[in-house]
Amino acid sequence: MRDFSPFVVKKRKHISNTIKNVFELYGFEPIETPTMEKLDILSGKGGEESDKLMFRVLNSGDFLTKVDDGLYNQKNSSRLTGAICEKGLRYDLTVPLARYVAQHQNEIVFPFKRYQIQPVWRADRPQKGRYREFWQCDADVLGSNSLLNELDLAHIYNEVFSQLKIDVTIKYSSRKLLAALAEHIEASDKFSDFVIILDKLDKIGVEKVKEEFLKKGLHAKSGALVDELFHYSSNSNFLESDLANQLKKYAIGAKAFEEINYLNEKCNLTNLQLDPTLARGLDYYTGPIFEVVASNFKGSLGGGGRYDNLTSKYGLNNISGVGISFGLDRIFDLMEENNLFENVKESSSMVLFINFDEASSSEIIELARNLRKNAIPTEIYPDASKMKKQMKYADNKKIPYVIFAGSNELNTGKLTLKSMESGDQESLTLEEIIKRLK
Amino acid sequence: MRDFSPFVVKKRKHISNTIKNVFELYGFEPIETPTMEKLDILSGKGGEESDKLMFRVLNSGDFLTKVDDGLYNQKNSSRLTGAICEKGLRYDLTVPLARYVAQHQNEIVFPFKRYQIQPVWRADRPQKGRYREFWQCDADVLGSNSLLNELDLAHIYNEVFSQLKIDVTIKYSSRKLLAALAEHIEASDKFSDFVIILDKLDKIGVEKVKEEFLKKGLHAKSGALVDELFHYSSNSNFLESDLANQLKKYAIGAKAFEEINYLNEKCNLTNLQLDPTLARGLDYYTGPIFEVVASNFKGSLGGGGRYDNLTSKYGLNNISGVGISFGLDRIFDLMEENNLFENVKESSSMVLFINFDEASSSEIIELARNLRKNAIPTEIYPDASKMKKQMKYADNKKIPYVIFAGSNELNTGKLTLKSMESGDQESLTLEEIIKRLK
Repeated sequence: MRDFSPFVVKKRKHISNTIKNVFELYGFEPIETPTMEKLDILSGKGGEESDKLMFRVLNSGDFLTKVDDGLYNQKNSSRLTGAICEKGLRYDLTVPLARYVAQHQNEIVFPFKRYQIQPVWRADRPQKGRYREFWQCDADVLGSNSLLNELDLAHIYNEVFSQLKIDVTIKYSSRKLLAALAEHIEASDKFSDFVIILDKLDKIGVEKVKEEFLKKGLHAKSGALVDELFHYSSNSNFLESDLANQLKKYAIGAKAFEEINYLNEKCNLTNLQLDPTLARGLDYYTGPIFEVVASNFKGSLGGGGRYDNLTSKYGLNNISGVGISFGLDRIFDLMEENNLFENVKESSSMVLFINFDEASSSEIIELARNLRKNAIPTEIYPDASKMKKQMKYADNKKIPYVIFAGSNELNTGKLTLKSMESGDQESLTLEEIIKRLK
Repeated sequence: MRDFSPFVVKKRKHISNTIKNVFELYGFEPIETPTMEKLDILSGKGGEESDKLMFRVLNSGDFLTKVDDGLYNQKNSSRLTGAICEKGLRYDLTVPLARYVAQHQNEIVFPFKRYQIQPVWRADRPQKGRYREFWQCDADVLGSNSLLNELDLAHIYNEVFSQLKIDVTIKYSSRKLLAALAEHIEASDKFSDFVIILDKLDKIGVEKVKEEFLKKGLHAKSGALVDELFHYSSNSNFLESDLANQLKKYAIGAKAFEEINYLNEKCNLTNLQLDPTLARGLDYYTGPIFEVVASNFKGSLGGGGRYDNLTSKYGLNNISGVGISFGLDRIFDLMEENNLFENVKESSSMVLFINFDEASSSEIIELARNLRKNAIPTEIYPDASKMKKQMKYADNKKIPYVIFAGSNELNTGKLTLKSMESGDQESLTLEEIIKRLK
């Protein structure tokens, strides 16, 4: 887990504020949920994998008094866990959303357009681009079947990344297309194997995917299918292909192309690209799916899709939803690698007053207050240290201007304003300085 | 632990953004530290009380394999905790700050002016104004002895609360004054009892404080002292009192009045008030201390002070620091009680387009994009539901304007803009609408 130093916090805020502002531009409303949720809320939903990655919180006080000796004497980690932990840290924002919507269904205005920007935790082995504490930025619409929502979400992706000056491709497809593909190769009964293996295409390549298909007992046709899908993963002619025409004959295939055609026709984004190999893992998705990638950067910057029945585990049925997520930490890594933080200022302060001595400081305090009243972030070096030390402080903190207000300057009312970048010095009244810096 | 609904998140952001902006106006830089810290960092620092209130995180995986049978068979909660938990959730932002400064001492520019706005967790019994997950907003300066820092921090308190339109009193004193008082009643050897009991004055009153002093074996003089101190807690003449003159004779008392006089003379704030009964619990404070209170509101809205050697536990000696903290949740409660969130908008969207049918929606999508390009937060009702339902949505979400763009409106280019507050309708072109709403 990581400490974030001032400049890093500012760069991260630049990303999260951009995302937040675009979410709000599209009418999404913020919610926040607690860091800890009850384990029965968190468990099971995301499969065994999520259970393993969950951080559990030890019950407070003398927690062993409630554990019976029989269970205790087994000395079994996973059984004991159930008896000494009731809460865990959220590992995504989707489970808390589902619990929130079910719990507050009577206060919520549906369709519920919410966004949530908060950290999540996974007890993952740390590796490049993966952290044990990381931030997700999610926007979801619950309680509307309209594909207009998918359209808005695709545009939100485009708007955020264009504001951040990152060239991305927004890949899309539909989980219904995958169902049609599985039917086509007579593998509907092995749908999850099919999806899980296809999802690895990026990582393991075409040949390995074919091998794994055969190993899992998929029809021999599956090999040719992968070749063909791979061809269309970056070729815009899939919609006119023979394969597409054949898939439309299945009921689920026809529905898939309704969704795909709607997005293709209405979305009006040059960087939106249909990728029939897109699988998005073994998630809860049931309709259109999205994934955002950037060239020369491994892994996705975000993903999402439509799901049905997310809230039914928590007692609220028949709510269809669709959502997208931004991976703040990945976006940060990409922007750092490509020097895309040029507009983020390193220093909070715009001006540092050099501290000469106790005697002049009352007047300097008054001058600094005046600048702050004019919304100019200002600090006074707190100690009357050596000039060199004070200048080094301004330099290291990247404060753009320094003001010298020694007894001469205070007598004449003309202060010396020095630009730290150019080194230029000017003799100006406070009013002139305010005008200059505003 | 609490869910925060959209309007509550916005109100809370209004507070935290105000605090953040004022911190930056005074040149403070943000840092963020991880939710979890190692237990040896967290433990012991804040005394037994904090240890009890700490949430501990269970080690991942098969955590019992590392626990030896001898220890396990004792079935002792606190001993087992040490063997199965390595991390805990931070319970304040001060311990992480101290660890951060010691760990990053070579990258930090001193004096280090940092702020930190993050949640903390305490396994406290929930009660009014106390939550198990709550937010602290701290600003600290480390590595400077100058009282100019105290001055800035007092002004930050004043600036934040005046921006939030909360009338507060900023009480101040010095821990050195408490030391002098203890010496005066010959109780220097019982200093912590003296401080802990005096700190309860607000809650238990003068008479109970006197009783507790005597119970702990403090000198009989202590009773008269409490009466006198209490008299001066809201009376500005303490500095000219006999008691003050007597206290100045002690070395530590003379130092106390140096600090107090500096703040009294230079601070220039009408709501700054010396309160010689101010104790701030058994904290790590060693110099000036602050506490912010509002009339008709129980408990403090913030507090702070100067401390020495905060970082020495983590291997960095001789760093003096001073800091203040804002209690976001208490401030929220006070503002909610007093209707001080009038300026916070409830809805992200400024406009809702009524959805008539699939046919017109392409044109509406284009119109909505146009508004968004002009930075006007806009949404389209996603489904072609009944008008009544769509209007109710706008009303419930407090969206200020609704646009009707049916086939008539689209043909003539004049859209109908309805104000949800006044009910007025106007027929306007998109350009006119943009002008109106910007």
